[in-house]
Amino acid sequence: MTNPANQSLQPPTLPSRQALPRRIYLDNAATTPVSEAALTAMLPYFQESFGNPSAIYSYGLEANQALSASRRLVASCLGAMSSEIFFTSGGTESDNWAIHSVVGRSDLKGRHIITSAIEHNAVLKPLAKLAERGFEITLLPPDRAGRIAVAALERARRPDTILVSIMLANNVVGTVQDIPALARAAHEVNAVFHVDAVQAAGYLPIDVRALGVDLLSISGHKFHGPKGVGALYARIPRLPEPLLNGGGQERGGRSGTENVPGVVGLATALAEAVAGLPKTAALTALRDQLIEGVLRIPGAFLTGDPVNRLPGLASFVFTGLKSSVHLINRLNERGVCASSGSACSVASQEASQVLMAMGFSEELARCSLRLSLSRRNTAEEVETVVALLPELIADIRAKIH
Amino acid sequence: MTNPANQSLQPPTLPSRQALPRRIYLDNAATTPVSEAALTAMLPYFQESFGNPSAIYSYGLEANQALSASRRLVASCLGAMSSEIFFTSGGTESDNWAIHSVVGRSDLKGRHIITSAIEHNAVLKPLAKLAERGFEITLLPPDRAGRIAVAALERARRPDTILVSIMLANNVVGTVQDIPALARAAHEVNAVFHVDAVQAAGYLPIDVRALGVDLLSISGHKFHGPKGVGALYARIPRLPEPLLNGGGQERGGRSGTENVPGVVGLATALAEAVAGLPKTAALTALRDQLIEGVLRIPGAFLTGDPVNRLPGLASFVFTGLKSSVHLINRLNERGVCASSGSACSVASQEASQVLMAMGFSEELARCSLRLSLSRRNTAEEVETVVALLPELIADIRAKIH
Repeated sequence: MTNPANQSLQPPTLPSRQALPRRIYLDNAATTPVSEAALTAMLPYFQESFGNPSAIYSYGLEANQALSASRRLVASCLGAMSSEIFFTSGGTESDNWAIHSVVGRSDLKGRHIITSAIEHNAVLKPLAKLAERGFEITLLPPDRAGRIAVAALERARRPDTILVSIMLANNVVGTVQDIPALARAAHEVNAVFHVDAVQAAGYLPIDVRALGVDLLSISGHKFHGPKGVGALYARIPRLPEPLLNGGGQERGGRSGTENVPGVVGLATALAEAVAGLPKTAALTALRDQLIEGVLRIPGAFLTGDPVNRLPGLASFVFTGLKSSVHLINRLNERGVCASSGSACSVASQEASQVLMAMGFSEELARCSLRLSLSRRNTAEEVETVVALLPELIADIRAKIH
Repeated sequence: MTNPANQSLQPPTLPSRQALPRRIYLDNAATTPVSEAALTAMLPYFQESFGNPSAIYSYGLEANQALSASRRLVASCLGAMSSEIFFTSGGTESDNWAIHSVVGRSDLKGRHIITSAIEHNAVLKPLAKLAERGFEITLLPPDRAGRIAVAALERARRPDTILVSIMLANNVVGTVQDIPALARAAHEVNAVFHVDAVQAAGYLPIDVRALGVDLLSISGHKFHGPKGVGALYARIPRLPEPLLNGGGQERGGRSGTENVPGVVGLATALAEAVAGLPKTAALTALRDQLIEGVLRIPGAFLTGDPVNRLPGLASFVFTGLKSSVHLINRLNERGVCASSGSACSVASQEASQVLMAMGFSEELARCSLRLSLSRRNTAEEVETVVALLPELIADIRAKIH
């Protein structure tokens, strides 16, 4: 006993959740509610089948079976083998680990890494740390639509390039890259190819063999799975160099007691989303209804690739707003959840960095709006928002001038 | 669209959980079921208040408030300030990060690290990696009861010692260390002191100021909170060097969308456990009933410190068993969940390493049994196990000889 000081502690209680009015949630690229199927699948693993998967008694085996079944399910959703799927704590860990799994090797053929200027910070920040440690990072610029040209990668690649990391679909503007061609270009110099598919998984069909990638990151909460769980696909035969070291879970790849309910939730949600992919046309139609409506506003411009974009993601910039924060706040007052294009702490900053890399002026880049749909949104919700936006934008513009 | 191959995918479904017979769960040191209070607190954050805490609309603010309230709650349970608590994906990440937060600094005064030979692999494995990178690691040997002597640390410490990491309570034998004295000895050479409190939190009163530590790791699922979430206490004014880099969550300390339900569950479970600490005597009495009963078996020996040990942890070795695996399997057949002393993949190996470091022969160290109680276990359960063990052990011994 080291310290009796806390024995009379009266811990404060958590505030009870207040009922919210009905909202129109158009920030599904930031996070999504857990689906009914995923939550139902998770629940038994909190209290009944709660065993440690490493234990050798029945509770443990039961948890271990759930883990294996989830791994097979995720593998089948991604066209991978079960042994190529490693569970993590989310997209950031998956991205960080993917990079570490390459640079942490002792037999590096070089110290040159290629990525794009519009990657998520979960890729850009660890690469910036590596730059401090003597790695050389080349940032490929996107075109005005957010596309990374294969030719640009071909010019940048070198014999000492060890890693190329390009995202499947951008989180701010939704542009989908030509990953198979980019991966081929990386492999021609024997570089490892990592794709951040956090924003794409569950919304676009993903087959790791067809993509031709070596490493692929996904995150549960982006496709109606739980927060705090993700996965990394790592192509065999090479086991990825661990980022987290300890008890040797995940075949030595990722230590830490497995988050069984989280993993079951991720797998169930991914399978549900993949099973729903044939119905993507409905989501695309909703997105296009939104885009058409918003583009009728004077001074509104679509950002990202008009064709090769995420089915649920509509992104814009508006002239004369100074900052998108006012617009997002006004939308919130009217019950609409939207964002500038990134949910991370440095939110609007990241969004504007992406847009400036795409050639937008700083002024326009600061006035970005991302409306991201899921299969739960309706045509009525889209109509409401399309009807609301002109008034809000006109009002903000009037107040600024 | 990169790949249409998966559109006809028929994902396999997860196996439905089979009803299990009533079991006696004596492996609470491996993992615990989520408490009713913790699960109830978590549930609203999966589907209703599911927002991304970084978002600026109501859903986001609501999630952010839950995060802040949880942080305050955890801080109050540990005698810390709210700004000193960082949420992680579990004990392994907390331990790994604690070490990284010291060695990742650019202004290191040396490359010498001290730990004990009986730490969890979440400390020993990252230190082994650091040894490959030129850090010098000193492993302090425990005495026969698993105690790390302050004098041993005083002899090992040096002007270039940057970090001392000693666990609060050992996971295999339950021995509680004199952390305040060990931390003082570390601070006398200006080394940072980290304590792995994963096995202790919720079972022993913890006050970071009274302990005098700089970094402290806890894990939710060890005290009836959820798996996949932990916390690191890091004493201000120094923000820990990040292990996961990206969106800049947790004040830049730990990137990744926050696992709001998990964090709420961890905080609720910790507060519940801390509120229950005054009733620890009941748990200790149950443990001592177990110890007394088991020690009546010929050739049974208590491992760990007889007095300064975790209130719920009883650990033993038995002569003439060859391996504890047979005993654990037999107990499982009779509905009792127990372990050799570690839940990690290299389970029995880790347990035997700890016992051998404490001076047990390899033969005895392989025959370890850990029975770990929680507040849910009953005197009847203990009686049942005490009555069962002599028969099982005699039978195994007879079959071996």
